[in-house]
Amino acid sequence: MAKELKDLTKRSENYSQWYNDLVVKADLAEQSAVRGCMVIKPYGYAIWEKMQRQLDDMFKETGHVNAYFPLLIPKSFLSREAEHVAGFAKECAVVTHHRLKNSPDGKSIIVDPEAKLEEELIIRPTSETIIWNTYKNWINSYRDLPILCNQWANVMRWEMRTRLFLRTSEFLWQEGHTAHATREEAEEEAVKMLNVYAEFAEKHMAVPVIKGTKTANERFAGALNTYTIEAMMQDGKALQSGTSHFLGQNFAKAFDVQFLNKDNKPEYVWATSWGVSTRLIGALIMAHSDDNGLVLPPCLAPIQVVIIPIYKNDDQLSLINEKALAITANLKAKGISVKYDNADNKRPGFKFADYELKGVPVRLVIGGRDLENNTLEIMRRDTLEKETISCEGIEARIQNLLEDIQANIYKKAFDYRIAHTFTVETYDEFKEKIEEGGFILAHWNGTPETEEKIKEETKATIRCIPIERENETPGKCMVTGNPSAGRVVFARSY
Amino acid sequence: MAKELKDLTKRSENYSQWYNDLVVKADLAEQSAVRGCMVIKPYGYAIWEKMQRQLDDMFKETGHVNAYFPLLIPKSFLSREAEHVAGFAKECAVVTHHRLKNSPDGKSIIVDPEAKLEEELIIRPTSETIIWNTYKNWINSYRDLPILCNQWANVMRWEMRTRLFLRTSEFLWQEGHTAHATREEAEEEAVKMLNVYAEFAEKHMAVPVIKGTKTANERFAGALNTYTIEAMMQDGKALQSGTSHFLGQNFAKAFDVQFLNKDNKPEYVWATSWGVSTRLIGALIMAHSDDNGLVLPPCLAPIQVVIIPIYKNDDQLSLINEKALAITANLKAKGISVKYDNADNKRPGFKFADYELKGVPVRLVIGGRDLENNTLEIMRRDTLEKETISCEGIEARIQNLLEDIQANIYKKAFDYRIAHTFTVETYDEFKEKIEEGGFILAHWNGTPETEEKIKEETKATIRCIPIERENETPGKCMVTGNPSAGRVVFARSY
Repeated sequence: MAKELKDLTKRSENYSQWYNDLVVKADLAEQSAVRGCMVIKPYGYAIWEKMQRQLDDMFKETGHVNAYFPLLIPKSFLSREAEHVAGFAKECAVVTHHRLKNSPDGKSIIVDPEAKLEEELIIRPTSETIIWNTYKNWINSYRDLPILCNQWANVMRWEMRTRLFLRTSEFLWQEGHTAHATREEAEEEAVKMLNVYAEFAEKHMAVPVIKGTKTANERFAGALNTYTIEAMMQDGKALQSGTSHFLGQNFAKAFDVQFLNKDNKPEYVWATSWGVSTRLIGALIMAHSDDNGLVLPPCLAPIQVVIIPIYKNDDQLSLINEKALAITANLKAKGISVKYDNADNKRPGFKFADYELKGVPVRLVIGGRDLENNTLEIMRRDTLEKETISCEGIEARIQNLLEDIQANIYKKAFDYRIAHTFTVETYDEFKEKIEEGGFILAHWNGTPETEEKIKEETKATIRCIPIERENETPGKCMVTGNPSAGRVVFARSY
Repeated sequence: MAKELKDLTKRSENYSQWYNDLVVKADLAEQSAVRGCMVIKPYGYAIWEKMQRQLDDMFKETGHVNAYFPLLIPKSFLSREAEHVAGFAKECAVVTHHRLKNSPDGKSIIVDPEAKLEEELIIRPTSETIIWNTYKNWINSYRDLPILCNQWANVMRWEMRTRLFLRTSEFLWQEGHTAHATREEAEEEAVKMLNVYAEFAEKHMAVPVIKGTKTANERFAGALNTYTIEAMMQDGKALQSGTSHFLGQNFAKAFDVQFLNKDNKPEYVWATSWGVSTRLIGALIMAHSDDNGLVLPPCLAPIQVVIIPIYKNDDQLSLINEKALAITANLKAKGISVKYDNADNKRPGFKFADYELKGVPVRLVIGGRDLENNTLEIMRRDTLEKETISCEGIEARIQNLLEDIQANIYKKAFDYRIAHTFTVETYDEFKEKIEEGGFILAHWNGTPETEEKIKEETKATIRCIPIERENETPGKCMVTGNPSAGRVVFARSY
């Protein structure tokens, strides 16, 4: 077993350390020289590219187009929307000067004090303000609506405590910003994009999510309503995986964006925004991976199948090469990404451990005896089950296996969530149960004060008011005994 | 004719104004509220996406992978490489603080003086420094080489005079950064990527380019050799369209990146970097477009074919709809992007002008008489030629036409360059000819001083020392009479 793998902390020993180890050892990302900013390494970025491609297709299918807005935002823009400023004008990167020059002694470079900006610029923490300032010029009449733009971009929030992918000062994301003529249309859009995110999470990431709305405390700064998808990690904590905001007319009012309706009367425009980020890579890792390394869903795995030869001499290798390359070509023709690794500077055992660590869903091994028997050994990463099978019909078999792995990973995560979701009636029960981790369904009286009290006393927050609670009956708040319309989802979270 | 089109300045009246008008009127980009930073609008961004997809495929075919490095660079990093600092540590965006707070009167937000950074951070003008600081940790032995990374990113150079796409403070680009064990391999890589850029420009953008090397004066700050592709715009000026740099061991030495070679001896790593940016969109516009608007090569046109109905009543429209949707489906099945525009709030004449302005390569019009005759009118944007043709075999005909337009646009630009390329023998002749625009092939003695003198006196620079000059004979420098190995390409440039 390779050294790297042995060094991976076990989940049961220290879940948090296991995550940090895995991100680095699987070559996904690392800390950079700039505090809180990460380097996304090629293998990690390949996962992000797969996510991007899939999400981008889904955005386009739902009528959206991409555009690009400036990285820098004038400081005064942040103050325009009262709640937004409170939420985002805090820890952020401030550009104050636009020139460097040689120091008087010529030994270093310094900021040129003469090159101070009249107004400071902020590196975007999110782009509502600069975009609505732009939309003002794009919108005159109802004929200009809706505007359905998305942007793939980097953003910056000066975080004090960072963790690779989960919370970094700079991160990559997409942010959709749409403008509508009516409240109904904007609300529909916000829900539509929540559903796109949920579908992406469940079908492609194989991560089951609960769809719901945030409470006022947890809402996006400037939104009337925030929709969220919440996933459970293997330590029972929740990870908010995507949010979609109904912004009402707040930004239209802040930036004076009005349109003439069909009756030729001016009205403020209705808005949404929605985003997911490289945080999803963190969710992917924490939802599925194990003590041997990553477990990647085939839909998002940069390499879906790896083929490794085991040989005694060059003659055997050249026969195996022939066979492996034929299989590789056939699998590629079916759209499966395959790597044939016959590099001679690493031993098979090292390769086995390395591809396990990297979460490649299917491993094929071809050895000398397999040549005689027209067989190969096939291993699935999710269960680590091995089998020797015939090479006949191998392509169809692998295609089925990839689908089966995708479904199995989802089911495993789903079953885990069910097993770690508890319904409680009393606050005492709640306090006891929350220590074990998991989601807790409980009644709450609907006030920010009660939510705040629970958070202070238990570190748990309301992750969402679930959308699907048809079977729920009203009850009484576990803390105050006041009436509650239905149970909400509590958890500790990332 | 639509109002927008009438307002487009003619190229012959004011080429520069024509360009500015066109970028805005064709909905490609606009100035933002932040000085020098542009908003890339959906139609302009769709062209960039097509460029990105094609280039990314070409990078991957040549063995490269994508990664992501931090936006911010510690100020001290810029000083590490002596020439690099002189080139890039000038006009740039400097982050000095990391927090905002409410002003004492509570009416605005101000920069928190307590949140001053220990070391200022620069928004990347290019990423050699932060990347080589990272590569230091990735490279131990020759087995870790080569590293072939590319990054798609935004960069910032605080430009004083900006023009949409051609020169903006923030722009989008890709930057490749590779690390090699030998000088030869790095030089090969730099040339390989130059060839990738040239192929992309000629085959996909339909823009002919001259491949060559830059003189010492025009070289990238920190490079031993800069390769370039130079294109001619319709005003005879040159536009540098992509560069590939052989960086020698300069950055490896600056960041102390050594590897153990096969003999277990330490050596400094050899480097290249190479990039193209959203500037290519400016090149695309200026190389092909005309007084009616954009002329886009089919390979990069977001919409390749537009279909417009002309009808007298709803019955006629519904018959046209049926026919148009069938054609649309057949064209899409062949991978052609089609838009059927039967919007009833714009007149056909407006649509004609608008799609001409937007450079859609092929326009189909279906009217009442066409229904009877099973015909339609087809127009090609490059020549504006119209023809009425049978609907039989329309898909194959359009596919051929798109290929023909692609080839024709290239040929037109190529012929234009040939017609505007002059060979001169004397400096007097040079001074006269340069006023007419175009490329001038002339002898030069190889010194920076002579080049500088020519630049001061004529505003022309050496665009490149062309790689393909086998047929050239040595001669005498037009300024000094000193020996010259071969002619170089002079021009005024963007």
